[in-house]
Amino acid sequence: MLKPKSVVIIGASREPEKVGHVILQNYINAGYDGKLYVVNKNAGEIMGFKSYKSVLDIGDRIDLAVIAIPARFVPQALEECGKAKVKSAVVVSGGFAEIGNNELQDALTRVAEKYNLPTLGPNCLGVMDPRSRNDTLFLPTYKLSKPQVGGVSFVAQSGAVGSTILDLIGGEGFGLSKFISYGNAAHVDEVDILNYLMNDAETKVIVLYIEGIKRGKDFVEIARRISKVKPVIVLKAGRTSAGAAAAHSHTAALAGDYQLQEAIFKQFGFIVANDLSELLYYAKIFVTEQRPKGNRVAIITNGGGAGVLTTDAIASSGVLELAELSAATKKVLQKSMPVLVNVRNPLDLAGDAGSERYSAALEALGTDPNIDMLIAIVLFQTPGADSKVAAKMVEYKDKTDKPVIVLSIGAEYTQMHRIMMESAGLPVYDSPMSAAQSLAALYTYSKYCATHK
Amino acid sequence: MLKPKSVVIIGASREPEKVGHVILQNYINAGYDGKLYVVNKNAGEIMGFKSYKSVLDIGDRIDLAVIAIPARFVPQALEECGKAKVKSAVVVSGGFAEIGNNELQDALTRVAEKYNLPTLGPNCLGVMDPRSRNDTLFLPTYKLSKPQVGGVSFVAQSGAVGSTILDLIGGEGFGLSKFISYGNAAHVDEVDILNYLMNDAETKVIVLYIEGIKRGKDFVEIARRISKVKPVIVLKAGRTSAGAAAAHSHTAALAGDYQLQEAIFKQFGFIVANDLSELLYYAKIFVTEQRPKGNRVAIITNGGGAGVLTTDAIASSGVLELAELSAATKKVLQKSMPVLVNVRNPLDLAGDAGSERYSAALEALGTDPNIDMLIAIVLFQTPGADSKVAAKMVEYKDKTDKPVIVLSIGAEYTQMHRIMMESAGLPVYDSPMSAAQSLAALYTYSKYCATHK
Repeated sequence: MLKPKSVVIIGASREPEKVGHVILQNYINAGYDGKLYVVNKNAGEIMGFKSYKSVLDIGDRIDLAVIAIPARFVPQALEECGKAKVKSAVVVSGGFAEIGNNELQDALTRVAEKYNLPTLGPNCLGVMDPRSRNDTLFLPTYKLSKPQVGGVSFVAQSGAVGSTILDLIGGEGFGLSKFISYGNAAHVDEVDILNYLMNDAETKVIVLYIEGIKRGKDFVEIARRISKVKPVIVLKAGRTSAGAAAAHSHTAALAGDYQLQEAIFKQFGFIVANDLSELLYYAKIFVTEQRPKGNRVAIITNGGGAGVLTTDAIASSGVLELAELSAATKKVLQKSMPVLVNVRNPLDLAGDAGSERYSAALEALGTDPNIDMLIAIVLFQTPGADSKVAAKMVEYKDKTDKPVIVLSIGAEYTQMHRIMMESAGLPVYDSPMSAAQSLAALYTYSKYCATHK
Repeated sequence: MLKPKSVVIIGASREPEKVGHVILQNYINAGYDGKLYVVNKNAGEIMGFKSYKSVLDIGDRIDLAVIAIPARFVPQALEECGKAKVKSAVVVSGGFAEIGNNELQDALTRVAEKYNLPTLGPNCLGVMDPRSRNDTLFLPTYKLSKPQVGGVSFVAQSGAVGSTILDLIGGEGFGLSKFISYGNAAHVDEVDILNYLMNDAETKVIVLYIEGIKRGKDFVEIARRISKVKPVIVLKAGRTSAGAAAAHSHTAALAGDYQLQEAIFKQFGFIVANDLSELLYYAKIFVTEQRPKGNRVAIITNGGGAGVLTTDAIASSGVLELAELSAATKKVLQKSMPVLVNVRNPLDLAGDAGSERYSAALEALGTDPNIDMLIAIVLFQTPGADSKVAAKMVEYKDKTDKPVIVLSIGAEYTQMHRIMMESAGLPVYDSPMSAAQSLAALYTYSKYCATHK
C-alpha cells in the first residue's frame, strides 16, 4: 500500500473538481514512477491514460487500488479488486458509518475480509510516502506545503486534521516518513498501522491522532511493546464527553473513557499531547533520537527575561530540574565571560552576545557532568545575535551528546534562522513552555526506555 | 515622554556599533518630525547634527532626554537635565542595581526626585509610540518587524522580552499603541505606567510583563480600578522559586509570593498569562473590544476532527459551554445544508464547504439566542476553503454582535489568509486550545466588568 509498483485509480475523472481527477493529477505531478492505471465506467481516455471499465480488464498485477467513487458502488468495485488479486486498497469515498450507513460499511468490510485484501478507509485521505512518491491525497497541491523526506510517520483518523498537520510539517525543518489517514477503519485500523510502523526502519517517531479505539485488547497488546522500539506521540480527540459525542458524529468512533485510555498511554510510555500544536513540538525533538541521561537542564540566554520565563517553565514542568553548574564550569566561565555576565544558571550572556560568547559558554557547559540537557535561548532581535550564532548552535549540536534545543521567538528574521537550524536537525521552539514541555517529555520517555528493556 | 516635540540624545555617537548611534539613526529612519538634538562630550558634529557638550548648552525646551552613556556618568547627566528643565528622561544604560550597583542607582533616583523629573530605566529599552514616531529602542531595525498602529499597549520590565514581543506584534494583524520597557524602575515604575495607560484613549488593551512589583500597596490600588476601565493582560516572570532567583539576578527584582500575586491579579479582573505566546493570543481578542453576553459557544468547521478537538478544548476550559442550537436554527440549517451535514454543534460543513455554505451557516447561527460566541474553523487545506471564505468571515464579523474568532491551522496558504483576516480586525488562532482559552478569558473578563461597575 505504501510503496506500490502499480496503482489503479478507480473513479479517475476528466473533470478537475472531481476527487478522482485530483488524485490522478497528484500522481502525475509527484513524478510517481510506477505503473498507473485508471478505471472509469464512462470515459474512454482520461488525461492520456486508457480508461478501463473494470479493474478486471487491466490484466496486470496491481499493488494498490485507490477507490474514489460514490459510496454505494464501492463494495462492488472492491469485489472486483479482490477477484483481480489487487494487493491493497484505499477507499477515499465518504458516505458510510459516519452518516449512519452502517450496512454499507459492513458490506465493504465483508468483501475486504473475504479476499483478505488490506483496505484502508472508507472516508479517509489515504496514504503518502514521500520516498516512493505514492500519494493518494485528494488535496489541491497549491494549498499544501509538501513536507521533506524524514523520520516522522503521521497516523490520523481524520482527513482534515491529517492534511492540516501535513501542511504544518511542510513548514517545519524536519521531514515525513509516512502519512496514513485511515478514516472509519472498516478493515485496516490503528492496531494494524502501528504494527507496520513499529517495524518500519524509515520511521523514527510515530505521531498518532485518534478519535476512537476499536480493538481495545489488541491496542493494549501493541501499546505494551511499541514504545520500547520507538516513541509514539498520541493526541486523542473526544477526551471530554462533549468531544466524544462530536467524535461519534464524525467518524462513528466510540471515544471511550479517556481517563482509562490516558492511563494506558502513560503506563506504556506513550507521549500524550493535549493539543495539535503539541504534536509538532514533540515530533521535532523525538525525531533527533537524542536521549538525555538525566533531568538537569542548563539555560543560556541573550535576554534575561526570557531566561527567567524559561526557568519558570522548567521548574513548573514537574519533571525537570535546573542544573547546578559544577565548580570547574564556573571557573572556566568566570575567565571567559565579560564582567557583566553573572555566572549562574540561567547564564545570561547579555544582549550584545555574539557567536564567540555563545561558543565559549556552550563549550564550558557541554563538558559539565552536572548538566543533562541544554536550552540555548537566542533572541535574534538583540544587537549581537546573527547567523553566526545560528551556525554555532548547529555546529555545537553535532559535538555534544547532550540533547540541545534552541528557543527563538520572533517574526521574519527569526523564522529565517529557525528554518536554517531545524533543517540541520536542531529543534527550535517558540515559547518557554513548549521548550520545557518537550524536554520533559523526552526525559520521561528516556526513563521509560531505561526501565522497560 | 511618549509624544515629545523635542528630543535630545545624550551619548549620540558616530560609531555604528554604539547604542547612541543606533538610537539617533532610528529617530532619523522613523521620520520623527520634532526637534532632534545630540549631546556628546567629544564630537563636534554627528550625522549632520551639531553636538553639544551638555544639555545645558542647548538653550531650547526639551521634552525628552534619551541617555545612553556609561552608568557612572548618568547621575551627572540627569542632574544637568534637571537644571535645563528637561521634561522627561529615558536611561537606556545598564550597570546599576542589576549587577549589584545599588548606590549608583540610588544616586540616579535622588536626582530624578530632586528635579521631579520623570525618569524611565535604567537598564531598559525605553519607549516606542508609532503614532508620534517616538522610538528610543536601540535595536537594529532590519531585525525587527515594525508593528502597525493600533490599540495594544505593551509594558515590559525586560528589554529583550519586550523587543521579542514587539517583533511578534509586527508579524500580527493587530497594531501597537505604546511600547514601554522600564528596566530597573529606579523612578518611574509599573504603577506610574498603569496610571498613565488607564487614561490613554489610544490604548484599548494593556499587556504587562513584570518581574517584580515594587510598590505593592499602590499596585493593589491601581489594580482595583484599572480592569473596570480596560483589560490588563499580565505575565509575571519569577512564578517559581527558581524563576524568582533568576529574576533577581536580572533586574534586581524581588519577585515575591506568586500565589498571592496571582490571587490579587484574578480578584481584580486581570487576565493572567502563563507563557509569552498567551500574551499575543489574549491581546488579539481583547483589542477587538468584543464582549460576549454569556459562555455558550457554537463551532462551525470544515474538518470534523478539528471540530472534535475544539469541542474538547471548550469543554475542558472550565468556563465555556457548548451551545445547544435552538429549534429554529436547526430547522433553518436542515433546509440550507446538504444532506451529508449533520445539524448539531459542532456543525461540520464538510471538506467541500465553500463561502456559500459558510455564509448560510453563519447567518443561521448569528441570530440564535442560545449562542453567545462563535468559533469558525476554516482549514484552508480542504478543497472548498479559499479567499472567498476568508472574506465572508470578515464580512460576517461586522454584521454580528457576538464575538467571533477563526481557527485556521497551516503553513503558507493559511498564513496569507490569517494576515488578511487579522488586518480586518478578526482574530485568528492556530490551535484549538489557544482559541478556547482566549474565549474563556474574554468571557471571564466580561463577567468581571458586569459585576464590578
